[in-house]
Amino acid sequence: MHMISRCLFTHSFKYLVTEISVRNMSRCTVAVCQFTATNNKAENLKIVKTLVHQAAEKHAKVVFLPEASDFIASNKKEARELAESINGELMNEYKLIARNNLIWLSIGGFHEKLNEETIYNSHVLVDCTGEIKSVYRKVHLFDVAIPEKNIYLRESDLNVGGSQIFPPSETPAGLIGLAICYDLRFPELAILQTKLGAQILTYPSAFTHSTGEAHWEVLLRARAIENQCYVIAAAQYGKHNSKRKSYGQAMIVDPWGKVLAECPKYTGDVDTNESIAIADIDIDYLKKVRQEMPVQQHRRNDIYDLSIVNCEQTSIDDSETYKFADKVIPGSTVFLRSKYCYAFTNIRCVVPGHVLIATYRPASRLVDLTQHEIADLFQTAVKVQRKMETEHKATSSTVCVQDGPFAGQTVAQVHVHILPRKQGDFDRNDDIYYQLAKHDQDDNPNPLRKPEEMAEEAKKLRQYFL
Amino acid sequence: MHMISRCLFTHSFKYLVTEISVRNMSRCTVAVCQFTATNNKAENLKIVKTLVHQAAEKHAKVVFLPEASDFIASNKKEARELAESINGELMNEYKLIARNNLIWLSIGGFHEKLNEETIYNSHVLVDCTGEIKSVYRKVHLFDVAIPEKNIYLRESDLNVGGSQIFPPSETPAGLIGLAICYDLRFPELAILQTKLGAQILTYPSAFTHSTGEAHWEVLLRARAIENQCYVIAAAQYGKHNSKRKSYGQAMIVDPWGKVLAECPKYTGDVDTNESIAIADIDIDYLKKVRQEMPVQQHRRNDIYDLSIVNCEQTSIDDSETYKFADKVIPGSTVFLRSKYCYAFTNIRCVVPGHVLIATYRPASRLVDLTQHEIADLFQTAVKVQRKMETEHKATSSTVCVQDGPFAGQTVAQVHVHILPRKQGDFDRNDDIYYQLAKHDQDDNPNPLRKPEEMAEEAKKLRQYFL
Amino acid sequence: MHMISRCLFTHSFKYLVTEISVRNMSRCTVAVCQFTATNNKAENLKIVKTLVHQAAEKHAKVVFLPEASDFIASNKKEARELAESINGELMNEYKLIARNNLIWLSIGGFHEKLNEETIYNSHVLVDCTGEIKSVYRKVHLFDVAIPEKNIYLRESDLNVGGSQIFPPSETPAGLIGLAICYDLRFPELAILQTKLGAQILTYPSAFTHSTGEAHWEVLLRARAIENQCYVIAAAQYGKHNSKRKSYGQAMIVDPWGKVLAECPKYTGDVDTNESIAIADIDIDYLKKVRQEMPVQQHRRNDIYDLSIVNCEQTSIDDSETYKFADKVIPGSTVFLRSKYCYAFTNIRCVVPGHVLIATYRPASRLVDLTQHEIADLFQTAVKVQRKMETEHKATSSTVCVQDGPFAGQTVAQVHVHILPRKQGDFDRNDDIYYQLAKHDQDDNPNPLRKPEEMAEEAKKLRQYFL
Amino acid sequence: MHMISRCLFTHSFKYLVTEISVRNMSRCTVAVCQFTATNNKAENLKIVKTLVHQAAEKHAKVVFLPEASDFIASNKKEARELAESINGELMNEYKLIARNNLIWLSIGGFHEKLNEETIYNSHVLVDCTGEIKSVYRKVHLFDVAIPEKNIYLRESDLNVGGSQIFPPSETPAGLIGLAICYDLRFPELAILQTKLGAQILTYPSAFTHSTGEAHWEVLLRARAIENQCYVIAAAQYGKHNSKRKSYGQAMIVDPWGKVLAECPKYTGDVDTNESIAIADIDIDYLKKVRQEMPVQQHRRNDIYDLSIVNCEQTSIDDSETYKFADKVIPGSTVFLRSKYCYAFTNIRCVVPGHVLIATYRPASRLVDLTQHEIADLFQTAVKVQRKMETEHKATSSTVCVQDGPFAGQTVAQVHVHILPRKQGDFDRNDDIYYQLAKHDQDDNPNPLRKPEEMAEEAKKLRQYFL
Repeated sequence: MHMISRCLFTHSFKYLVTEISVRNMSRCTVAVCQFTATNNKAENLKIVKTLVHQAAEKHAKVVFLPEASDFIASNKKEARELAESINGELMNEYKLIARNNLIWLSIGGFHEKLNEETIYNSHVLVDCTGEIKSVYRKVHLFDVAIPEKNIYLRESDLNVGGSQIFPPSETPAGLIGLAICYDLRFPELAILQTKLGAQILTYPSAFTHSTGEAHWEVLLRARAIENQCYVIAAAQYGKHNSKRKSYGQAMIVDPWGKVLAECPKYTGDVDTNESIAIADIDIDYLKKVRQEMPVQQHRRNDIYDLSIVNCEQTSIDDSETYKFADKVIPGSTVFLRSKYCYAFTNIRCVVPGHVLIATYRPASRLVDLTQHEIADLFQTAVKVQRKMETEHKATSSTVCVQDGPFAGQTVAQVHVHILPRKQGDFDRNDDIYYQLAKHDQDDNPNPLRKPEEMAEEAKKLRQYFL
Repeated sequence: MHMISRCLFTHSFKYLVTEISVRNMSRCTVAVCQFTATNNKAENLKIVKTLVHQAAEKHAKVVFLPEASDFIASNKKEARELAESINGELMNEYKLIARNNLIWLSIGGFHEKLNEETIYNSHVLVDCTGEIKSVYRKVHLFDVAIPEKNIYLRESDLNVGGSQIFPPSETPAGLIGLAICYDLRFPELAILQTKLGAQILTYPSAFTHSTGEAHWEVLLRARAIENQCYVIAAAQYGKHNSKRKSYGQAMIVDPWGKVLAECPKYTGDVDTNESIAIADIDIDYLKKVRQEMPVQQHRRNDIYDLSIVNCEQTSIDDSETYKFADKVIPGSTVFLRSKYCYAFTNIRCVVPGHVLIATYRPASRLVDLTQHEIADLFQTAVKVQRKMETEHKATSSTVCVQDGPFAGQTVAQVHVHILPRKQGDFDRNDDIYYQLAKHDQDDNPNPLRKPEEMAEEAKKLRQYFL
Repeated sequence: MHMISRCLFTHSFKYLVTEISVRNMSRCTVAVCQFTATNNKAENLKIVKTLVHQAAEKHAKVVFLPEASDFIASNKKEARELAESINGELMNEYKLIARNNLIWLSIGGFHEKLNEETIYNSHVLVDCTGEIKSVYRKVHLFDVAIPEKNIYLRESDLNVGGSQIFPPSETPAGLIGLAICYDLRFPELAILQTKLGAQILTYPSAFTHSTGEAHWEVLLRARAIENQCYVIAAAQYGKHNSKRKSYGQAMIVDPWGKVLAECPKYTGDVDTNESIAIADIDIDYLKKVRQEMPVQQHRRNDIYDLSIVNCEQTSIDDSETYKFADKVIPGSTVFLRSKYCYAFTNIRCVVPGHVLIATYRPASRLVDLTQHEIADLFQTAVKVQRKMETEHKATSSTVCVQDGPFAGQTVAQVHVHILPRKQGDFDRNDDIYYQLAKHDQDDNPNPLRKPEEMAEEAKKLRQYFL
Repeated sequence: MHMISRCLFTHSFKYLVTEISVRNMSRCTVAVCQFTATNNKAENLKIVKTLVHQAAEKHAKVVFLPEASDFIASNKKEARELAESINGELMNEYKLIARNNLIWLSIGGFHEKLNEETIYNSHVLVDCTGEIKSVYRKVHLFDVAIPEKNIYLRESDLNVGGSQIFPPSETPAGLIGLAICYDLRFPELAILQTKLGAQILTYPSAFTHSTGEAHWEVLLRARAIENQCYVIAAAQYGKHNSKRKSYGQAMIVDPWGKVLAECPKYTGDVDTNESIAIADIDIDYLKKVRQEMPVQQHRRNDIYDLSIVNCEQTSIDDSETYKFADKVIPGSTVFLRSKYCYAFTNIRCVVPGHVLIATYRPASRLVDLTQHEIADLFQTAVKVQRKMETEHKATSSTVCVQDGPFAGQTVAQVHVHILPRKQGDFDRNDDIYYQLAKHDQDDNPNPLRKPEEMAEEAKKLRQYFL
C-alpha cells in the first residue's frame, strides 16, 4: 500500500459510481462479529473464518470484524513482532476468506506495520473479490499524560495516528464510513462522514469493561440518531490475557437509534465468546427517517463550520532540493510539504526531535511573509509539533522563531524551530536556548549529522502524515 | 434588549472574571423542573413560583425551567397574542422570583416577542439579583418540508432562528452553555460551547412522546459523555391541550454519563406533573473526569476544523447611504452587513422576498471582485437566502447574478438576486426571469415601492440576524 | 510540453539550487534585441540568428528577443496557420541557436499552438545547452469591448490567457521573471515575481506607436525602480505589414531606474531596424541598491496582502467519474478541478458555452454547503466564467443557481450555471431562463449532446487553465 | 480626533453619496503648490495663505499642499516641540483658510501629535466649509537598518506608521485617494485606492534631490498610467535648513500619463520657491481613457489577489477584563484586539518591549486551537512584532511559545512572547531565554510592574494601530 497523497475528496469517487449498479435492492443482510482475540494469530484467524462462514450461511453480504482481529498481544514488544504489512500473509488470508465466501469484509482493526517502529491501527475494507477498497488509519489515539501523577498511557507508544478522513465507500449494504473504537467519542468524524454521504457508520472496538458499561451503547445509539445512519459495531469480548479484558456487545443500530441485533456483553462470568449478530440494512428506511426529520438540512453551516482541513499536503520528491538562504536542503530530509512551507529534519539537534519548518519562498523575516504564508507556516508547525511529541513521548514543546540576526538567526530564511521538551531535559530550562543559539554556528563542537541519518529520520516521520 | 452586534467571543468575558469569586466551592446544588404548561400564563407562573420555592428550600443555587415555561398555546395565533417582550411584565415576574429566592434562574424557553410577527425561542439566564445575564435564541428550528407529501411542519412559522452562539455564562454552579430542545441533536453546538469553556450543558425541552421515548435519554447522556460536561435538561410533561403532549423526564446527567436525578416520564396515565429533581454539581469531579480521559485534547483540530463563523456582521446605521452604481441605497433599507457586502430590500420585487446583496466596493462585474469579496458575497447570499425562505415559507430559491448588460444587468454594480420560490409561483417557471430582466427597467409598468415600505421590510428582516 | 499542474511554488526550486554554481561572478553581459518581424518565418529566423550571433560576439551570456519573434501575421487566419507547437521545428531551430552560440535565449513571444484553435502567447527561456527551462503564458490579454461603440478588439480572439505565475528562473545573469508586453501595466505581477526572488524583469513587447511614445519608457523605468530590479525589454520595431507598426526602443534599465542601453525608437522615417543593445547586469549593484533603500522590507503585508491564488487546481483523470445526484459525470467532460468542486460541459446547452460547476460532495441545496465550499464554488465559477466569455467572445454572463425544485432544479445536487450572453441572443432576454428551466427536463425536444462532443469541448477548455 | 476603529470599508460612504450633487460638471480646476517650508510655522502658514489665495483667484476648487506644510524642523527634538494635535491651533487656521476661500484643502503632510512621543505623518483633507473630511496616516515609513554598516535611518524615530487604508474621498474634483511621499514607491496602495473608486491619486512630498531627479516624475507618471488616474503631487522645494533640501517639481499628471502642469525643480541655483501650478481635472476624459483601454477589467483577480487585511481590529474597552488561565488581564493593559486574540503588556519584561498575545478562548496548548485561531494568533503576533521593533528601535525579535509545562509554560493559556532584540542585549544570546523561563516564576527577584505602568505602555502602543 503506497502513500495516498491525493486530496481526499477525490478518493473513491470512481468506484462510487461504477459500483452503483451493485446495489439494486434497498435491503441487504449484514453480520457483526465478536470474539476473544489472543496473541495466537493462527487461532484468531481460524475463529474469523468460522464466523464469516456462519455469516455467509445467513446470506450476509458484508461482515464486520472487531478491532484487533489479527491479534491482541500481551505487551508492546510482542505486538511489534506480530504485526504485519498490509501486503503480508495475514491480509492475503483475509482476502481469500472474502473471495471464498463472496462476501465483503470489514477488518475493523489491523496492526498495519510500516517499519520496525511504525504501526497504524487500520480499518481495512475488502470487497467480495478480495480486493482492498479502502484503508482508514485511526486518527484519534488514546494518549493520557498526567505529569503530576506520573501517568502516561499512550496508544501512541505502539500506534501512529492517521492524518486523513476519507469519503465513505460504496458497498452492497450502502455507503460505509470507516472509524475505529475511540473515534466513537468524537462526533465530528461521524458528522463529516455523513456529510460525505455515509449511510452506515462503523465502530469496530475493544472497549474496556468499565467504559463499555458506562458509554458503549449510549454513544453508538447517539451516533445513529444524530446522523440518521445505521451504526455497526463489532467488538472484542472477554479475557484476552491476564491483563486485558473487553466489554463485547457487538451491535447493529438502525437510523432511529433502535438496537436491531446484538451479541452478549461481558459480565465476568464467561471469559470467551464467539458470536455473530445479523440484521438487514434498509436504505429505504434510512431515507424515510431522513426525510421525515431532515436533521442534516437543519445544520447551521452559516453559524458554525465543520470542515476537513488536511487537503493541502503535497507529495514529496526526494530528488528535489530546496533553497534555505545560502544553504541547500535535500528533498530526502523533508517529511511534510504544505502549500507554502515544508518541514525537514535538522543537521544539528538541540534535543531529539528538533525539526524545522521553512517557507518555500525566500524571505528573511516574518514581516516579509504574506498573511497566507504566516497562517500556513504556523498551522503546519503545530501539526508537526503534535507528531513530534508523539514520536518522542513528550508533553511540551518549545516553538520558536529567531527573527533577525540579533535574535540568534544565523540562516537568513524564516524558519520555525520545534523542540519536543521533557521534564528535566536541561539542567536549567534555559539551556535549551543556549544550545539553540549555538546550534548552527561554526564553532559548535557537536558534529553535524550525516545526510543519511537525517533522511532516515525524515522517512520515518513521513509515516505520521498518511 | 437591544441588538448584540459585537463579536461573540468578547461577550461575557467581563463577568467571567468579576464573578469568579462567587464560586469558591467545588459543589453546588441545582434543581431541574418539569411541569405541564398550558395557555394560562398566570397559572404557569404560579407553578414556576412553587417549583422555584421548593428548589430554594432544598438549597439549590440555580433552578432550570423547561422550554415554553411561559405558556404552550393551542395555536399560533394564540401564541402570538400571548408572547411578550423580554422587557415585559412576565420577565419582570421571573426576575422577582429570582431575587426573592436569591436564586439563579434558567428560563429555558421564553417566547421573546420582537414585533407583531417575530418571535424568538429564547433561553434567558437571570442571576440571583434579578438581572439578565445572557439570552440565547435557539438556532436550530425544526422545519420539515416534504413537497411530494404536502407536509410542511415549520417551527419557523412561529419562531425566528437565532444567529449567534455565545460563550458560556459563569454561575455559582459553573460555566453554563445555553441551548434549547432540538439543539440537542446537533453535537457541533455542544462541542463549541465546551471549547468555549462550558462545564454544564442545558437542554430545556418539550420533546414529543415518540421522540422522547426513542432519543431523549440517550442523546442527553451522549452529550454529557462526549463533552465531559454536566447536562441539565428541564422538560415539559404531559398533556398541554387536546393536540399536544410532552414526554417529560427532566434530568441531570454527570460528566461520566450517569443520570444523577430525574423526574417522571409521561406514559399516558397521568396527564400532568409538577416536580423537581435535585443534584449536586461537582466541578472537581468534572475536572477529574477530564483529566483521566483527556478527550478534549485528543480532538484533531489539524484534520477537521469546527469553528464559529458568524463573527463578521457589523451594525447597521440607518442614516448611512450606499453607492449602488449611480443609485443611492438608504441605510434604512439595509438588513445585513458583512465584511465586504450588504443585503437590502428591493425597490421592485419580482416575487415577495426578492432581495439583493451588493459589495460595498464599486465593481461592475464579478471578475472585478477579489477572491475574498467573491467568498463573502455568496456566503452572505446563502445566509440571506436561508432566512428569506423561512420568512416566505419557501423551499426553493433562485440565486442569480446578471453579470453584464447583455445578461440583463441594468445597474452596473455587482449584485446577487435572491428570489424565494414556490410551487406554481409563475405560469411558466421562466416567467420569473422575464420579470427579473424587466424589473428595474424604466418601462416597467409596476409601480416602485415606497422607501418606508422597503425600510419596514428591512427592519423586520434584521430580526433574523440577531 | 505537457501540462504543468503542480503548485507553482515548487516549480524550479530544483535547478535554482543545482545551477547556483553557474553564477560565480556578480557581472554578466546581456543583449536585448529589436527587429521588424513579418509573416515570413524563415526571414525572421535568419534575423534572429544574426542578432544572436552579434550578441555572442560581444560576450553576452543571455540574449532577449522580442514578442512575436517567430512572426507577425497579417491576419488571424494566417497567424493560426503559421503558429507551431512548442515541440515543433521552429523551437528546435531556436534551441540549436542557443547551443551553437553557447548562449541563453529568452524567446520573448512565441505563438504556442496547442490545437487548431488554441494559441498561447508564450515566453520561452532556453538555456545554453538548448534545453527549455521555463515557459510563461501571458496572463493579461488585451481585450476591449465597448458595446455602445461596437468596438471589439480582442487579443483573445487569437490567444488564450495563461493561468499561472511561476517563480523566476536562475540564469547566468541572475534570477529572471518572465512576462510579456501588456503585463507591464500590471504592477502586481512584477511585485510577485520580485517576492519570489526575481532580480531581472523582462517585458519583450510589440508596443503600438502611440502607447509606446506615451508609456513605454516610463513604465519600464517605474518597474525597475519600485522593484529594484534590472528590466530588460526587447521590442518589435517599425512596419510589419500594411496595418501594423511597432514602437521599438528595446532597452535595459538598471535597478535605480537608469537606462543603460537602448535601441532606436520608431519615428516613422525608417520602417525597419535590426539592432541589439548591450549592458552588464551587476547583481552586486542590485544588492547595494536594495540594501541602501530596503523598499521590499517596507511593504506592509499586515495591511494589504498580495498573493498568488491559483495553486489549488488539481489534475484531471479522464477515467474518473463523478456522482451528480443520480447521474454520472464522466471525467472526460470535466475541464477544471478545484479543491471542492469541478467544472464540466453540459449535456444540453441553452446557449453555446453553457457549462456547470458542482461540488464533489453530495449536497442538494446551497445551505448544505460549508463556508469553504461556498467560497470555492463561486470563486471557481467566476474563474470559469471569465474564460467562457473569452472563448465565446461574450461580454456578459448569467450566473445562476436554481436552488430547490420550485426554482427549476431538476438534479438534486448544487450546481452553478454559467451562460455566456450576447446582445440579442434571445428574442426576449428572459427566454434564456425558459430554456434553462426546460433544458434538462425529459420533455425537452432538443437532442442530448453526445459524450464525445462534450469531451471534445472539455479538452479545449482545459487549455484555458494551464 | 478620536480613534477610528470601524471597518475601513464603511468609512466615508455616507458623504460619498450626499455630496455627489456637488459635482455636476465633469471639469474642475485644481491647484498644486510648492514652497520651501522651514521651522518657522508662522511664516509657513503665511505662505500657505498666499498660495491658496492665488489658487482661489484662478478658480481652483481644491488646493494641494505639500508634505510637511506645517514645518520642517532642524532636528527631531524641535519637530516634537513644533508638532500639534489635529484639533490644535494650526489646523484651525487651515480650516479658516478653506472656509474663507470657499476651497477644499489637501494638507499633504501634517505632524499630527498624539502625545509627547507619538507623531503621525498625516494627510488631512478639509472641505470648503472648513470641516475635516478624511485623515490618512502614512503607512510606509522609511526605515533603514544596516547593522553591518551601523546605518540606522529611521523615519519611525519621529513618526508612527498608520495602520489603515481608507476609501477615497469625494471632492468637487472627483474621488481622491490620499497618500504621502514614500507611499509612491508601493503600487499596491494606489491599486487598492483605484479599486475603491479613486480618480485622483495624491503624493504630497518632500523628495530628496537625488531620488527626486532619478525617480520623481517617472513614478508619478507610472502611477497615473497604470491606474488611469489623475496624479497630483505637491512638493517641498529647495533648502529648508543647513542639512535638508528638497527636489520640488510639484506636478499634475493626467490619466494618460501626460504632465499637465508643473512647478520648477530645484537645481541648486535658487534655494527657495513659492509657486502653484494649475490644471483642469476632467472626469469625462478619465472615463474615456478607462473605457478605451479597460486595464482595470484585465486585472487577473483569479490568479493574484490584492486585498486589504486590517479590517478585523476591534475597539478596546478599558473596563473589560480577560481570563488568562487563573489570572486576570485588565483591559487597560491591552493594546490590540483581533478576531480571536489580544495583545497586552507584560507584568515582568525580560527585555524592554516584551509583550504577549493570547487567545480569548481558554486553551492551554497550541494543538487545542482551531486553524483559524492559529492563523490569527500568529498574524497578530507578527503585526505586533513589527511595531514593537519600531518602538524599541530593534531589528530582530524572538517570537516564542513555551507550549506545555516542560517547555517553561507557567500560565496554562496559549500565549506568544514577542521580545525585541538588540545587538549584545545579553551577555550570552541565550540569557534572554533564561530570563524568559524565570520571568513569571514566584522566586523571580525582579519586582512586578505596576498596573498603571503597564496601562501607560499599552496606551502608547495603541497609537501604533490607528
